[in-house]
Amino acid sequence: MQTLRVNLTPKTKSYSIFISEWNLNHSVMLIKKTLKEKRLFIITNNTIKKLYHSKIEKIFGKHFQTNWISIADGEQYKNLTTYEKILTELSEKNAGRHSMLLALGGGVVGDMTGFVAATYMRGIDWFQMPTTLLAQVDASVGGKTGVDLKTGKNLVGAFHQPKAVFIHTHFLNTLSKRDFQCGMAEIIKYALIWDKKLFALLTRHSRDILNLKREYLEKIVFRSCQIKAEVVRRDERENSLRAILNFGHTLGHAIEVLNKFKKINHGEAVAMGMVYATKLSHKLNHSEKDFSSDVVHLLELYHLPTNWPKFNKNHYERVIQKDKKANTTNIKFILLQKIGKVHIVPLQTKEVLKCL
Amino acid sequence: MQTLRVNLTPKTKSYSIFISEWNLNHSVMLIKKTLKEKRLFIITNNTIKKLYHSKIEKIFGKHFQTNWISIADGEQYKNLTTYEKILTELSEKNAGRHSMLLALGGGVVGDMTGFVAATYMRGIDWFQMPTTLLAQVDASVGGKTGVDLKTGKNLVGAFHQPKAVFIHTHFLNTLSKRDFQCGMAEIIKYALIWDKKLFALLTRHSRDILNLKREYLEKIVFRSCQIKAEVVRRDERENSLRAILNFGHTLGHAIEVLNKFKKINHGEAVAMGMVYATKLSHKLNHSEKDFSSDVVHLLELYHLPTNWPKFNKNHYERVIQKDKKANTTNIKFILLQKIGKVHIVPLQTKEVLKCL
Repeated sequence: MQTLRVNLTPKTKSYSIFISEWNLNHSVMLIKKTLKEKRLFIITNNTIKKLYHSKIEKIFGKHFQTNWISIADGEQYKNLTTYEKILTELSEKNAGRHSMLLALGGGVVGDMTGFVAATYMRGIDWFQMPTTLLAQVDASVGGKTGVDLKTGKNLVGAFHQPKAVFIHTHFLNTLSKRDFQCGMAEIIKYALIWDKKLFALLTRHSRDILNLKREYLEKIVFRSCQIKAEVVRRDERENSLRAILNFGHTLGHAIEVLNKFKKINHGEAVAMGMVYATKLSHKLNHSEKDFSSDVVHLLELYHLPTNWPKFNKNHYERVIQKDKKANTTNIKFILLQKIGKVHIVPLQTKEVLKCL
Repeated sequence: MQTLRVNLTPKTKSYSIFISEWNLNHSVMLIKKTLKEKRLFIITNNTIKKLYHSKIEKIFGKHFQTNWISIADGEQYKNLTTYEKILTELSEKNAGRHSMLLALGGGVVGDMTGFVAATYMRGIDWFQMPTTLLAQVDASVGGKTGVDLKTGKNLVGAFHQPKAVFIHTHFLNTLSKRDFQCGMAEIIKYALIWDKKLFALLTRHSRDILNLKREYLEKIVFRSCQIKAEVVRRDERENSLRAILNFGHTLGHAIEVLNKFKKINHGEAVAMGMVYATKLSHKLNHSEKDFSSDVVHLLELYHLPTNWPKFNKNHYERVIQKDKKANTTNIKFILLQKIGKVHIVPLQTKEVLKCL
């Protein structure tokens, strides 16, 4: 087991991430230490519940009075309707200020459960047990919680750190290939913005990783969380540095919105967005050279798409202007200088659209 | 004009409350100092908009690009549906992270706008201009924001302090008598929990106050905010002391829920709840003597109801157990020791119901 400490200010918000292949007894032990009552509310989705309910109950059931709340699976359910459903169910089950939640699922479950925890009775405690690769390396660090509006992704939310995160790579065995690849997009992002060694490792060991070799999985998950934790520690509220985590996300989010969160998933959209950002970096003379073929090559090793859909340019423009990183005149865009290094640059919407 | 500073930790959250009869130019000046863009989103209700839109536009319109978002008037609209409506409208109007909101209205507008501000793009800044007496002495201090669920009041929300609060007692001229009396219930609460001098003043000058005599209005509004600010300063997150502000509210909230937020309004419910809490204090031997006739007398001076509705006892029990102040076994109940002094006492639900 590897342990990573996420240090935040004030210190009381700091928490640990525990990365192992499968060690539920350890998770139970740590949850027990924090829990203020016998009950534990497990928020999950129907897919995970079907696959893991009995396996988890067997161990958790011995120690807690578990209470499962299950939601439909998919980004299209990450909205205020599902949010209200969870809140109402908690209230009907008499959850109180001392009750605690466990988010058991992917990014949708994590983001929504975090937002519920942030706002139910003005804030209760929660734990995370991310079950997708994407959630393990992204939603598990940083405390960003939220839901989508029809007009855009993650437009409503709060910062609310979990008490602890339990990453079990064992969950990846039941993850679809496509969802696994999507998590890889985010891991490739960490390599691009921060760590050329990770870039090399991902290139060299793509076969081991795609074959879910345990040692490589734990290594890349740990390193990804470590990079994100370092960025978040330096700038929790995204006043400056943290914005680099949005590399590839400006166009990525726009693709997801225009696609109405359906055919293209988050990782795929980010993959396309990263190629786009790399090309734009070169076009605007911000990168040392055109790195887009390197980026495309690595993404292709993981079977990720690299061409963005040809939506109407005006539609792209309209959605990008709604981006949280945009103000009325320009957008904080993340440009690649070289592999492992990016810059935050304020761009006019027109400049952003130059490579479409 | 009187100014009251609400001191909080960290200091950056502290803010000022400005109390005057009517001084919009001063409000404009202060908002301008903080505003990061030309736009100001004014969240209000249809009643206030009809009464004050042109009066406020005349002054605000000169300095800001105002954007009015108006919701239906009434506690029954303080729900997640209205919340989503406001968020969506902000997003459609391209409000960004630097946009700011002004809550112009009563408690419903204040609580909802605050919650929108707390969560839109994970938090933006806001100002408050409370237009009812209740909002001026209650919602204006403390940063509690939120909405109701069908299962209970204020079950969803966040702590999010405004940048400044502008109280103009002039708004009270268009407030219905009944709503004015409801604000008085909350002011009487401050007297009961903290300040026997205020209790004496309210008794002696009921006629002046009911006739909206400016000097008395400003005096009791200022003193009420001061008491609440002092309590909140000592305990923002309601770990202990702040709970005393809930005097009369346990039964009060239950009455509102059972009444489905319709015929009986908040102040009336609290008035009934305070008489109940006073009687219970005596019954459980926590008060020096039976003060209920003094409490009833003062409430009656302000034409407030003092008898709670005879809902089924089981219904009261069910709702009180959902109260945020309750955990699985007992409730932090606020009992009166004497006029100006209360105690927080953990009670079993059965004890709470003893005087029904």
